[in-house]
Amino acid sequence: MRELEAGDLDKGVLSVLGNLSDMGDLTIAEAKEVFRKIKKGKSSHVLVAVVTDGQIAGTTTLLVEQKFIHGGGLVGHIEDVAVGPAYEGQGVGSALVRAGIAKAKELGCYKVILDCKPELVGFYERIGFRKHEIGMRIDLANS
Amino acid sequence: MRELEAGDLDKGVLSVLGNLSDMGDLTIAEAKEVFRKIKKGKSSHVLVAVVTDGQIAGTTTLLVEQKFIHGGGLVGHIEDVAVGPAYEGQGVGSALVRAGIAKAKELGCYKVILDCKPELVGFYERIGFRKHEIGMRIDLANS
Repeated sequence: MRELEAGDLDKGVLSVLGNLSDMGDLTIAEAKEVFRKIKKGKSSHVLVAVVTDGQIAGTTTLLVEQKFIHGGGLVGHIEDVAVGPAYEGQGVGSALVRAGIAKAKELGCYKVILDCKPELVGFYERIGFRKHEIGMRIDLANS
Repeated sequence: MRELEAGDLDKGVLSVLGNLSDMGDLTIAEAKEVFRKIKKGKSSHVLVAVVTDGQIAGTTTLLVEQKFIHGGGLVGHIEDVAVGPAYEGQGVGSALVRAGIAKAKELGCYKVILDCKPELVGFYERIGFRKHEIGMRIDLANS
């Protein structure tokens, strides 16, 4: 378990994420540009679970938010937990989330939050999360 | 409605946020340092509703997340919507959230998400949000 490096983008990260969500038509070259932007922002830590052959089994991102409240506290947001189809059911997702929590703790976050589908509540409760608020969404038409 | 400037921190922003959450013992000098960190991260846009006398009636933050999924899409997170006690019930909160959505649209976000207390679901639905996922939380003991 370590932070993503640009070279990993050739090693299955995009197909792992494709198991989570629509990837659009993102090429590896475009993904490298996206990763450059993510690193420039400094607030996102992309974690990867690496298999012995160097392939990526799963990924998640810890987004760290600097707040004014809580004495200028930091909040970690766990986003985009994705595991490749070949690695499902082996504890990779749980290990990724725990690594995200550990990173948040290391950085001094006072809490970690995430939004999940109702069927994943039990998975996150076993890790130590509790149901907290209602996740709301609005889609924007960017034409 | 405009983005926060460092000078606003003397004009009621901290007491407005104190109406939302515990502020710890954050001083104005410390808040200026926090704001410096927020601006350095480049991904947070702190919006303020300014009254004609220059006082701050309310604030919210749009956190912009660069993702790999959705073709390297951007997601806006609305955080810390706070209105001062003297300005409640006048549409300031709704105007702040709409300003956050407008900023997210301007920046090219494909969606805006937020977590709210159950009693605020109706408020956000009237703005155009829909219930989406379950918000989960874990508290970290940073001793």
